Amino acid sequence: MKKINVSVIGATGYTGGELLKIFRRHPHVHVRHVTSESSPGKRLEEIHPSLRGQYDLVFEPMDVASLAEDTDIAFFALPHGVGIKPVAEFLRKGKKVIDLSADYRIRDGRVYEKWYNVKHQAETFLARAVYGLPEYYREAVKKADLIANPGCYATTSILAAAPLLKNQLVERDSLIVDAKSGVSGAGKKTALTYHFPEAAENFQAYNVAHHRHIPEIEQILSDISGSKSLITFVPHLVPMTRGILAVVYAKLRKKMSVEQLEAVYHRHYSGEPFIRVLSEGTLPQTKNVAHTNYCDVAVRVEARTGHVIVLAALDNLLKGASGQAVQNMNLMCGFRETEGLV
Amino acid sequence: MKKINVSVIGATGYTGGELLKIFRRHPHVHVRHVTSESSPGKRLEEIHPSLRGQYDLVFEPMDVASLAEDTDIAFFALPHGVGIKPVAEFLRKGKKVIDLSADYRIRDGRVYEKWYNVKHQAETFLARAVYGLPEYYREAVKKADLIANPGCYATTSILAAAPLLKNQLVERDSLIVDAKSGVSGAGKKTALTYHFPEAAENFQAYNVAHHRHIPEIEQILSDISGSKSLITFVPHLVPMTRGILAVVYAKLRKKMSVEQLEAVYHRHYSGEPFIRVLSEGTLPQTKNVAHTNYCDVAVRVEARTGHVIVLAALDNLLKGASGQAVQNMNLMCGFRETEGLV
Amino acid sequence: MKKINVSVIGATGYTGGELLKIFRRHPHVHVRHVTSESSPGKRLEEIHPSLRGQYDLVFEPMDVASLAEDTDIAFFALPHGVGIKPVAEFLRKGKKVIDLSADYRIRDGRVYEKWYNVKHQAETFLARAVYGLPEYYREAVKKADLIANPGCYATTSILAAAPLLKNQLVERDSLIVDAKSGVSGAGKKTALTYHFPEAAENFQAYNVAHHRHIPEIEQILSDISGSKSLITFVPHLVPMTRGILAVVYAKLRKKMSVEQLEAVYHRHYSGEPFIRVLSEGTLPQTKNVAHTNYCDVAVRVEARTGHVIVLAALDNLLKGASGQAVQNMNLMCGFRETEGLV
Amino acid sequence: MKKINVSVIGATGYTGGELLKIFRRHPHVHVRHVTSESSPGKRLEEIHPSLRGQYDLVFEPMDVASLAEDTDIAFFALPHGVGIKPVAEFLRKGKKVIDLSADYRIRDGRVYEKWYNVKHQAETFLARAVYGLPEYYREAVKKADLIANPGCYATTSILAAAPLLKNQLVERDSLIVDAKSGVSGAGKKTALTYHFPEAAENFQAYNVAHHRHIPEIEQILSDISGSKSLITFVPHLVPMTRGILAVVYAKLRKKMSVEQLEAVYHRHYSGEPFIRVLSEGTLPQTKNVAHTNYCDVAVRVEARTGHVIVLAALDNLLKGASGQAVQNMNLMCGFRETEGLV
Repeated sequence: MKKINVSVIGATGYTGGELLKIFRRHPHVHVRHVTSESSPGKRLEEIHPSLRGQYDLVFEPMDVASLAEDTDIAFFALPHGVGIKPVAEFLRKGKKVIDLSADYRIRDGRVYEKWYNVKHQAETFLARAVYGLPEYYREAVKKADLIANPGCYATTSILAAAPLLKNQLVERDSLIVDAKSGVSGAGKKTALTYHFPEAAENFQAYNVAHHRHIPEIEQILSDISGSKSLITFVPHLVPMTRGILAVVYAKLRKKMSVEQLEAVYHRHYSGEPFIRVLSEGTLPQTKNVAHTNYCDVAVRVEARTGHVIVLAALDNLLKGASGQAVQNMNLMCGFRETEGLV
Repeated sequence: MKKINVSVIGATGYTGGELLKIFRRHPHVHVRHVTSESSPGKRLEEIHPSLRGQYDLVFEPMDVASLAEDTDIAFFALPHGVGIKPVAEFLRKGKKVIDLSADYRIRDGRVYEKWYNVKHQAETFLARAVYGLPEYYREAVKKADLIANPGCYATTSILAAAPLLKNQLVERDSLIVDAKSGVSGAGKKTALTYHFPEAAENFQAYNVAHHRHIPEIEQILSDISGSKSLITFVPHLVPMTRGILAVVYAKLRKKMSVEQLEAVYHRHYSGEPFIRVLSEGTLPQTKNVAHTNYCDVAVRVEARTGHVIVLAALDNLLKGASGQAVQNMNLMCGFRETEGLV
Repeated sequence: MKKINVSVIGATGYTGGELLKIFRRHPHVHVRHVTSESSPGKRLEEIHPSLRGQYDLVFEPMDVASLAEDTDIAFFALPHGVGIKPVAEFLRKGKKVIDLSADYRIRDGRVYEKWYNVKHQAETFLARAVYGLPEYYREAVKKADLIANPGCYATTSILAAAPLLKNQLVERDSLIVDAKSGVSGAGKKTALTYHFPEAAENFQAYNVAHHRHIPEIEQILSDISGSKSLITFVPHLVPMTRGILAVVYAKLRKKMSVEQLEAVYHRHYSGEPFIRVLSEGTLPQTKNVAHTNYCDVAVRVEARTGHVIVLAALDNLLKGASGQAVQNMNLMCGFRETEGLV
Repeated sequence: MKKINVSVIGATGYTGGELLKIFRRHPHVHVRHVTSESSPGKRLEEIHPSLRGQYDLVFEPMDVASLAEDTDIAFFALPHGVGIKPVAEFLRKGKKVIDLSADYRIRDGRVYEKWYNVKHQAETFLARAVYGLPEYYREAVKKADLIANPGCYATTSILAAAPLLKNQLVERDSLIVDAKSGVSGAGKKTALTYHFPEAAENFQAYNVAHHRHIPEIEQILSDISGSKSLITFVPHLVPMTRGILAVVYAKLRKKMSVEQLEAVYHRHYSGEPFIRVLSEGTLPQTKNVAHTNYCDVAVRVEARTGHVIVLAALDNLLKGASGQAVQNMNLMCGFRETEGLV
């Protein structure tokens, strides 16, 4: 099978680095260009030393016109806002785009602007974007030319909560998502909060009930459940590098046993290559999904209070970002969905 | 002021070590004996190398009769079940006891037996035990001769949730406690789960809705609120050594602003030497209370779903164990409540 | 190319788990059996949850006769001593063995006995063992039927120091190796030293000038340099899971510049697929080789004191164990040397 | 005993914070002012949240004239270079200064300029500075009005190596110091190297044979030994927050047993309140000295190669900085040397 040419736009960060690690093992991908506004002219291994000896690439400045000439699919790993217009240009040139930023996730430009403080300068393209969560939008992904790759918190929360809503098992708006993420989720930009002496041996919540992924999660849960869904969302910073564990709490509409709920989840995700529903006795751990594209899910019940508890774990840089992006690429190109990912 | 003689029964673990670190700085305490069933005859610094040069003590086997002769207050830091009878013997000899284990926390011996799989062999003494949470039982602590020192999860959860229940602000049984603890909370006994390569770079929940501190928390919350209270409780293991952060979620009975709720908490804990209620803008972090006896508390609201969110952080080995034990001792002996703790 | 059948003897530990992760990606390998004395009958994912869904294997007790029937190459990942006889039996049946333990590394059975407190019950096979360090024994490895896979400290120290000795650049016996290892190097067996609260936020040396890898390192360095070589070796425990950094100090026989020494190393390791000699300006970091089979090496000089300083980093579980074992297998079977490893 | 008034100049960093934690417990110290160029007007707890409720202080800009009026001793915790002139002004006003920066450690202004790229604008005061290492300069410290507080690497290296040189036990210039430090040693200023995802699960050397503490260490070792001493020095970054372990290697001039060397160290440091010489069987660990002012030291021998190995551990923020500064203050003021430190 012939290889496709891909370029990584904004390849100096963690998600860019993970994409390049995966492509190294992907039989159908040739990496054509890597771009960087901060380090044009530097060799790839100067920024990603672990990739030394595996690529012969130099960071280029982003020039959509020339890049588009020999690129089939562009992976955008730029900060929010920066890539809005370039993404649109790529599409205009008939190329496909997988955008790892939030720019094309929110269907309503005003909501995007409210949460990201950036005016969306390509709203007409919002309707073309397919939310790249294969477990719920697989067929649309196959036909898409623009993928809005989901956020890491959003992927975890939706994979955990959606079966409850889709099957109308819980009381509306009773959903609480207590999510915990490793520090790499904050990206490569330094800040005192992520300074080792501050982040190590420390645990804290942040953006309590006010995180940017809330509108994204609610939009998709509403879409899947068919009715407007609100959540109470509290993210936390865990003193580790990779991994997210989200714990979802909701009020059951009627008494259900853990066996019944596990059956629902097993049925719901049967055949999904990257969802592992764990049975009574085992619980998700971020270590078990680290460096993989899997999402482990388990269900529990607190019968005395009528609450269901769903736990989901994944690697925020893989199933929560770059791994899922490649899963989407595989679907768009007709490759084996798991190619390069297991 | 003359010094009192204290002995630490079961002094080889983490809480025993923390007690000895505090006593080193306490002007009114003389450590008379340290006991150990596993290491009798060993010098203190062989087990606690950080205390080298600060004490001249040898671990002795536990002999209540001889220990009681020159001990005013005995601190029991034994595993659950082991100290039940010795504690009773100490009391019979007219000495005072502060028990850091769970043995005297649960008022109903059958409930204790159900959760700890140990028959309680001194039920008659259960009624004499005062729950050593000064913020709620200060006067009783002053007069007590047996203190059931609270568990670390229990202290954090109660300090966070009690004001909501005492002021009837939330719907009964809507309380969810998502608690996260450092690994020292599991004690010094090795197990694969706490093996560094397993615990580092890992985050997981355990004993979901089935942790031993649940009956303890519910007993005290019911006591404080005056009506039976149930909680949904999920503990987690954080890849750090010290610290607990508990996040409490509850359904507000009526609309309230964050300012109103903060006012409630400030009023409720005004004058408390070890509770720091943080105002809008700052959140508790385990690092800020590590190696101190403080508990930092903050409150938030998710107005869209009508949930209140209370966050509390403390050091599981200090305000969650040994620090609180000394705070109780200070109250029992008429010392300054903060002596040796700040 | 047809697949070969491999079995992992003692597959519950970290090196066994890493072998299975690599085989998952290796196009020419079929895993036939996994054995365990501690957990026979358990499914693979019960011990290695991260491999859930990737294998359909159950741990079997070790029965050489039946295992040998359908196994082409057996990987022994047993504790030292346990596998001595089974390895010999496999060889007698005409099968090939790659032994990750130390049992066949030391050529002199008495030296082995002195350091491992185990009588070697198959000394006649010691002469057949090839030390599986491809950079120095590649041709012998290709023809071997028994590979003594090097230890992690040994691999790092030898790859760093050998060029100095082989080129007679340093004074004999002036070699000092200050090595630092992540905790996984100690294996999966729990002990207080590796208990998270003890190992985290802690750094210490151990077995100072008395580590079991000393005779192994000296044997190979003497072999490579052609004259008896002694080293001063101090290992340390780093609060991280994977990775080794070894720093070698030696007295230069004559003045040399860092450029001259770098030239020696570049020449010495040119063409080696897994050795990356870094040039002035960059230094090895364990993070850059984690989860890879690379060993990064750099040289420096302290001209004022006439010392050369060589730094080498690798992943103790891969180039230091399982990755190198697969590299050896690739050579023995005529596969691409890097197959499954990049 | 009346209290003295101290001010902390540049109190927003880690050493400033540690000073304030110690002063909180010191019976003879009143903190008069804290200054900050970056955060004037902010309350202390905004920068040091762990100190909330313990001080009522606001950061002031540095105005030597007004500060000197009601300050007896000024602790300078400013970045290198910034405090050179203000320190001199304080001295001119007849006040005492303890400078935690490197500005007054190097006696030769040109050497200082070479390593710190700053012209020393108060060279005439260099001669007045006493190197604040009480174990070697106690009497001078008592009479000093300007203390150059030693660096953390310097304190560890000198305490470990000095007895060998003072007693002429090792070959000159054979000293190698392989030092490992926690990340707080790099201060509070963020940089990619110290970004949690980069520093965690990583171990690396830096400034190999080219660290700023080299001239400081050599100056003092030469001073103590009475003859010019050179060292080969390699520092490392350990994925932990606090602590330094230095391992010193040197060639013995004549055969000596570990018992003989331990006797030398016990004699040399007998009576020192903060040096704990460990006997055969125990080794220094950073965890055992964390949050204390102790330095643990142990000695070993590799008889086969004739090398002595000395290991020393301390807390880089305490005995390596703020704790030692307070020890010096205690000596200057005639307080108990250990006041506030144990």
